Amino acid sequence: MLIVMNHKAGPKQIEAVVKAVEQMGLTAAPIPGSERTAIGVLGNHGYVDDTTIRDLPGVQEVIHVSKPYKLVSRDFHPRHTVVKVGDVAIGEGKRPVVVAGPCAVEGEEQIVRTARAVKKYGADLLRGGAFKPRTGPHTFQGLREEGLKLLAIARRETGLPIVTEVMSPDTVGLVAEYADLLQVGARNMQNFELLKELGRIRKPVLLKRGMSATLEEFLAAAEYILAEGNGQVILCERGIRTFETATRNTLDLAVVPLIREMTHLPVMVDPSHATGKRSLVAPMAKAALVAGAHGVLVEVHPEPDKALSDGPQSLTFHGFEALMGEIRRLNEFLGF
Amino acid sequence: MLIVMNHKAGPKQIEAVVKAVEQMGLTAAPIPGSERTAIGVLGNHGYVDDTTIRDLPGVQEVIHVSKPYKLVSRDFHPRHTVVKVGDVAIGEGKRPVVVAGPCAVEGEEQIVRTARAVKKYGADLLRGGAFKPRTGPHTFQGLREEGLKLLAIARRETGLPIVTEVMSPDTVGLVAEYADLLQVGARNMQNFELLKELGRIRKPVLLKRGMSATLEEFLAAAEYILAEGNGQVILCERGIRTFETATRNTLDLAVVPLIREMTHLPVMVDPSHATGKRSLVAPMAKAALVAGAHGVLVEVHPEPDKALSDGPQSLTFHGFEALMGEIRRLNEFLGF
Amino acid sequence: MLIVMNHKAGPKQIEAVVKAVEQMGLTAAPIPGSERTAIGVLGNHGYVDDTTIRDLPGVQEVIHVSKPYKLVSRDFHPRHTVVKVGDVAIGEGKRPVVVAGPCAVEGEEQIVRTARAVKKYGADLLRGGAFKPRTGPHTFQGLREEGLKLLAIARRETGLPIVTEVMSPDTVGLVAEYADLLQVGARNMQNFELLKELGRIRKPVLLKRGMSATLEEFLAAAEYILAEGNGQVILCERGIRTFETATRNTLDLAVVPLIREMTHLPVMVDPSHATGKRSLVAPMAKAALVAGAHGVLVEVHPEPDKALSDGPQSLTFHGFEALMGEIRRLNEFLGF
Amino acid sequence: MLIVMNHKAGPKQIEAVVKAVEQMGLTAAPIPGSERTAIGVLGNHGYVDDTTIRDLPGVQEVIHVSKPYKLVSRDFHPRHTVVKVGDVAIGEGKRPVVVAGPCAVEGEEQIVRTARAVKKYGADLLRGGAFKPRTGPHTFQGLREEGLKLLAIARRETGLPIVTEVMSPDTVGLVAEYADLLQVGARNMQNFELLKELGRIRKPVLLKRGMSATLEEFLAAAEYILAEGNGQVILCERGIRTFETATRNTLDLAVVPLIREMTHLPVMVDPSHATGKRSLVAPMAKAALVAGAHGVLVEVHPEPDKALSDGPQSLTFHGFEALMGEIRRLNEFLGF
Repeated sequence: MLIVMNHKAGPKQIEAVVKAVEQMGLTAAPIPGSERTAIGVLGNHGYVDDTTIRDLPGVQEVIHVSKPYKLVSRDFHPRHTVVKVGDVAIGEGKRPVVVAGPCAVEGEEQIVRTARAVKKYGADLLRGGAFKPRTGPHTFQGLREEGLKLLAIARRETGLPIVTEVMSPDTVGLVAEYADLLQVGARNMQNFELLKELGRIRKPVLLKRGMSATLEEFLAAAEYILAEGNGQVILCERGIRTFETATRNTLDLAVVPLIREMTHLPVMVDPSHATGKRSLVAPMAKAALVAGAHGVLVEVHPEPDKALSDGPQSLTFHGFEALMGEIRRLNEFLGF
Repeated sequence: MLIVMNHKAGPKQIEAVVKAVEQMGLTAAPIPGSERTAIGVLGNHGYVDDTTIRDLPGVQEVIHVSKPYKLVSRDFHPRHTVVKVGDVAIGEGKRPVVVAGPCAVEGEEQIVRTARAVKKYGADLLRGGAFKPRTGPHTFQGLREEGLKLLAIARRETGLPIVTEVMSPDTVGLVAEYADLLQVGARNMQNFELLKELGRIRKPVLLKRGMSATLEEFLAAAEYILAEGNGQVILCERGIRTFETATRNTLDLAVVPLIREMTHLPVMVDPSHATGKRSLVAPMAKAALVAGAHGVLVEVHPEPDKALSDGPQSLTFHGFEALMGEIRRLNEFLGF
Repeated sequence: MLIVMNHKAGPKQIEAVVKAVEQMGLTAAPIPGSERTAIGVLGNHGYVDDTTIRDLPGVQEVIHVSKPYKLVSRDFHPRHTVVKVGDVAIGEGKRPVVVAGPCAVEGEEQIVRTARAVKKYGADLLRGGAFKPRTGPHTFQGLREEGLKLLAIARRETGLPIVTEVMSPDTVGLVAEYADLLQVGARNMQNFELLKELGRIRKPVLLKRGMSATLEEFLAAAEYILAEGNGQVILCERGIRTFETATRNTLDLAVVPLIREMTHLPVMVDPSHATGKRSLVAPMAKAALVAGAHGVLVEVHPEPDKALSDGPQSLTFHGFEALMGEIRRLNEFLGF
Repeated sequence: MLIVMNHKAGPKQIEAVVKAVEQMGLTAAPIPGSERTAIGVLGNHGYVDDTTIRDLPGVQEVIHVSKPYKLVSRDFHPRHTVVKVGDVAIGEGKRPVVVAGPCAVEGEEQIVRTARAVKKYGADLLRGGAFKPRTGPHTFQGLREEGLKLLAIARRETGLPIVTEVMSPDTVGLVAEYADLLQVGARNMQNFELLKELGRIRKPVLLKRGMSATLEEFLAAAEYILAEGNGQVILCERGIRTFETATRNTLDLAVVPLIREMTHLPVMVDPSHATGKRSLVAPMAKAALVAGAHGVLVEVHPEPDKALSDGPQSLTFHGFEALMGEIRRLNEFLGF
């Protein structure tokens, strides 16, 4: 266990923590750092309860090093990671970004029109699915490589970097040829062979949280990518599965500040998939930014009523324009 | 209501279903399909009890259109309900309110000191538990009537209206003598005898969502109070129970705009119970306001480390002062 | 923490456990008992991780005494509790019982006919709801005291002891006048004022698990009843709330052997509410008995299609007769 | 499909919906109701993508009748599917099978010793993981191809067909060279590229239910395999993720009879992963068989305390011998 003191913590507070640890029959080893002091806890076998520790004055965080991740954790990498996608910088201290586009690439006219529209209203990146994971085999599965080519055309037309999903290890190379940011969908968050493959490329990865993944499992999945050598990972909360059926998923917004506390990686939010309902996208997008998200993904479609997937959660161009106006004002309020 | 017959269902079975529907004084409209027949049910007002139907031979599924609530629904009551608590107005178009105070009333000095502090920093109402629902019987259960008296003293000292929980029908009268706003806790959201009793008083009620209540059940619980004649109900999201253990509960913020769409009642958010973690209270409180909440409840304690309950999620006076500064700026941004 | 050795554990195994505890920096205090040895663990503050202990040879159970219950726990009460309801004994070593009857008492003819039928086919107790908790206020709420009187008539006619639900503290006295076994429904599992009131009476209580109650919360709720002096408590698993909608609830059958390990109280299962589907009642009832349940509750109605509630999960008399035949054979197989 | 209009929807909106339905080549049948109009949709085969509809003005809700699967459904394939693995027949009317072995293949001595033991006590198939999905990258990931070779040795020594997991499309060929039954783990249930690849081979597949997969999603995942031409699929319930932490997962046993009603495929149960606790494996294995499972998977390890994974839920040889004795008696009782 590692006890991280906040950088204002003085000798008295550190001493009090050391005492508390010793009262647990464990050994405390203070590690003075340049920014702050950490206190290593020795002598425990497996998990140690921290309730007598975590609320002591000066304690910033208690880290259980028995956790299944390490490289993503802030205590092993105190500096923020800022991910560059094309010319766009995503992360702490940067203006939150907006990734916009249709759920699926359906044709050249659809994706190029959408790219021009979202560019015009201020989107930073273009999203669009070429490889589509669908619950059943009898629905539209995406245009695959053809879709990637259409995304490239849309990029050429607008200059927007493109974000698209990759579904299997053997297509990572292909998708990486076209995409600026490779997305791992919720269903593949624990597709470990895919994660390892993505750890070996030189392009940034957007990792979506699994539908029923705990925060710990989410970070451990990111650890697979970092462990293979690729540190350019953005985490994305997109709603978890609960008993509630009024929304498509339950947006777990509290993980945004938590991820910022626990890791050095940027965190984004997808209010479209989280809620499944157009009218909830704007309020949840703004809530995400106020909660500290480094960006949002929103689905936009020229004619949502005719979309081949996710129409009900897609914004029209007009709706996106309105949202961007609100986001611009909010970013100013937030100091960006 | 739609009755879906299985694909083997013959004319006799369909006829029997039609008869059963008509015996309920309703109209049946068979819709022959290519694979199976469906039977539309017309003429009902609100929810239909389908128990006489869904089990007839050949019936595959019964699908409901109506909901178990009506009075809380915006369909039937388009105008917003604004709830007055003392001089404080809560609801659409009003400045969002802040309810602050300790989880439990522990003594006069504690509650009065807290009341003065939260008043000073701008709270609108004082919260404090006198009757405490606790998981087990061996922990502090609250000061009960003595706690109510101390809350009354704190109100006299500060002028803040008080919010406190009521746990059983037979104590509604007692709690109503002291409280300005009576709270129903998550565990009692479906304590229907309690809800009915609260429907018969003349004081406003703060109804917290049950730990595993769907939005529909939440609204149906409020319906019990309105159905008895008390329309002064405020709904409160306080986090739901999911598989995630990184936070105490999962704050389901998307229900805030949804409740505003579906009902005419004010909606508040409790980020303290939802997250269980002090550092998450401010970001989630601000996110709630941006999402459209009409107010927030936050736990504040003079010495969180010594609190008899919920210490880790309680703000210090200093932390509360900081939060109120942020909320003031945010309210200005939101136009209040 | 208390480490319970199984009664065959020898000195060497005990010594190995003591060593392991000391390696954790804690103190081990063996407590030789008449049946088995327990080892108290001292020196810890709060919860202790037991992964290095619980799998050592001879270890039967590791008990965290920091849990919110004590009286219900087997380590403080090694002997089984057998609950007598009328002449029927429920618990370890007794033939598993069958509680049968309609969800709600609807009238004299309905309840008496059902009582005679279930008696004829071998039921041990009669169930029927007089006070009915319903999601919304606009559906049938039960016959209340009139329903209790009808249950008493059915008992007089058949000799079957009766089980019925109580919903609020102020009606405990009334219900106790009529019922042989008072049921607390899932929605009221944490209605603590009700639990305390039931702890003060001299009649047995059937406590149903809350829809989203952890096993720990379930046992802590029972602790409220025992703490007030009533040890005659039967626990009942009736399905928990999950994301799955194919069944009404998700029957958590694994808690049956777990409750038998952890507590001295009898445990029953309600497959009717757990599944909400008639065709699943028989397989789940039998599965419950094989898993070690001390009894099952099944809903039976003379005309399920006309039932005022829960028709789809109610067995017909014919279906119940068939189930009882299967249960009789299964009980023989199980040695009863 | 039923389209429910909101109660304010006018003739124009209804007309627009009817047009949109007709544009899909389907028939629209409006059903005027007292409060609102519903529109029945006819002529579709299977699931209809409602994205062009559910968002039109005035539409309140779209309700589906058809499901995202068809080939797995009993409606379209009334005869039972019996899957042959080597000489072992799995399915309706056959003696339930027992698949036993360690979570992971750790070495030749371990897997061969275990194979001999489980064979001796009556197991039908040998399980063992060569490719291991693990939450984090810093734990044992399996022996991979080396593990497959060791499984082949164990098969040669005992004659037991082998079951092992495949994790990615590109290793399907390799795993299929060695395995008699290819397992898809819970984390990969919606790894659609993997499912499609498995649909193209001539070997049977054991598909485990995803941790948070609804029954509908589970069957739709199987549909991917059948849709590609491989009908030799066995479904396996292994526990779902819920709020309960007393067990590793929550075993959803009610899906066993439900799957038997809804599909023609065999269904098995894995009580080891479902409970995570050795003492619960035997009661849940027996409960599964009584509930109608066509087989069970149980983890067995020569020295569970030294297992590289899942030790606490693995049976010792002695424990497995005892379980097989109970299963043999139970199968006789069940008529096998």
